[in-house]
Amino acid sequence: MIAAMIVIGELINGTRKRIKRAIAERGEAYIASRAQKQAEAGADFIDCNPGTIGEDEIKDIRWLVTTVQEVTDLPVSFDTPNTSALEAAFEVYTNEAAPMINSITAEQERLDGMLDFTVASRANVVALALSDAGMPASADDRVQTAVELVDTLTGAGVAGGSIFVDPVIAPLGTDPKTACAVLEAIATIKAERPDVHVTCGLSNISFGLPERGLLNRVFVAQAIAAGLDSAIVDPLDREMMATIYAAEALAGRDEWCMNYITASREGKLSTQN
Amino acid sequence: MIAAMIVIGELINGTRKRIKRAIAERGEAYIASRAQKQAEAGADFIDCNPGTIGEDEIKDIRWLVTTVQEVTDLPVSFDTPNTSALEAAFEVYTNEAAPMINSITAEQERLDGMLDFTVASRANVVALALSDAGMPASADDRVQTAVELVDTLTGAGVAGGSIFVDPVIAPLGTDPKTACAVLEAIATIKAERPDVHVTCGLSNISFGLPERGLLNRVFVAQAIAAGLDSAIVDPLDREMMATIYAAEALAGRDEWCMNYITASREGKLSTQN
Repeated sequence: MIAAMIVIGELINGTRKRIKRAIAERGEAYIASRAQKQAEAGADFIDCNPGTIGEDEIKDIRWLVTTVQEVTDLPVSFDTPNTSALEAAFEVYTNEAAPMINSITAEQERLDGMLDFTVASRANVVALALSDAGMPASADDRVQTAVELVDTLTGAGVAGGSIFVDPVIAPLGTDPKTACAVLEAIATIKAERPDVHVTCGLSNISFGLPERGLLNRVFVAQAIAAGLDSAIVDPLDREMMATIYAAEALAGRDEWCMNYITASREGKLSTQN
Repeated sequence: MIAAMIVIGELINGTRKRIKRAIAERGEAYIASRAQKQAEAGADFIDCNPGTIGEDEIKDIRWLVTTVQEVTDLPVSFDTPNTSALEAAFEVYTNEAAPMINSITAEQERLDGMLDFTVASRANVVALALSDAGMPASADDRVQTAVELVDTLTGAGVAGGSIFVDPVIAPLGTDPKTACAVLEAIATIKAERPDVHVTCGLSNISFGLPERGLLNRVFVAQAIAAGLDSAIVDPLDREMMATIYAAEALAGRDEWCMNYITASREGKLSTQN
């Protein structure tokens, strides 16, 4: 999309039943159409998560990346912590724009296993605020882990602008303070390390609660006001994308609301399709 | 509504064509039904704005308040800066809960004219962050005017909890920084004077832009995260009220999301009526 928000399209994920089947059957047309539709709807990256392990994962991500880049010039996000699968993805990746590694964490073993590869790849990278201490609880936990991880990455040679911090969202239903903690963490991380992007796997916030789409939209609106400038979402969710356009305009990131007004003229803001 | 949010129902406003006619024709049934519907939908105050001036305003607000309190025990908000009309409203007001004066400002003439009356009335009061310097531009303008006005009111004997600061919203289309300035002002006012409520006449934000409901909803979500705990809205707008329920839950003001879950069970969160 035209707006400043960097949208990582999450649809091609092997934990979704229809995608899982398409991967297993090498259903090229279906995967290609999911990539194309997300690109048309405003995705900036096409995430590819094979949802498999071991040798299968390596073959599957290679096939997914090959299939996706046949229909779009958008950069691809390689959604796996497995460096062998990452290597396979890079081998077949030919698009010009730098891809995304999704994701690295501050867990020592994962960090040790991925850091050199990440630096050498010159790719973008999602940096999850997750350490060996487990799920972060407070805003401070998130900020401390994130800032240390960012400093480790930039110290090793990754550009700040290539890092997409994910502050880690726990379900609101299990921790009523999680949304506040994440919003505070987003604002503090952007204040302390203004070069980096902040992204979010959003939908976890509403896990186990009714009307999940409503909660996800309201939360993305709040997170954008706090400084979120990227999100891992389904770009085919029209209400979510409309919310992002409106939130960008309100955040003053859309000069004279021109993107918002254009999106309205193109019929993207009304939920009647 | 059960949630912490204090909703001032804005529907009975003489600038609306249908209401204007009902006031002119003394259409009691219509006004009564508008009051009742807003109460059922979760209003905490029923605003009454005759939309007339002079002697008419005095007669009209007297009639509106009489009509409204016949069908609801909710407190009424007297929406006029005219002290004669306010006096007339208080004369006929018999509900137990303290009403709202909507609104006082820091404009010297208006403040001088209304302060003693406001203190003596022991009513709640909307305190607009508007001074003789005109429309506030920055967050600081709003905070300074609001805090001075709050201190004048509390110094004269108004309880902090009876004051509803309105940070004054300019249309986003004429000032792209207005939403950010208002959000910052809300957070600072709540930090500096934690006793007072912060409310908002929301819909001004979207004036002149398309899909106004979308912008209004996204903005209320952001404002609630910043500390807004009251809003002047149409409680019959189901999408707006659903957004408020979700934003309250995300703000951690709805323990274990019980209000949110109850609202969902009652069918209030789905937009299919």
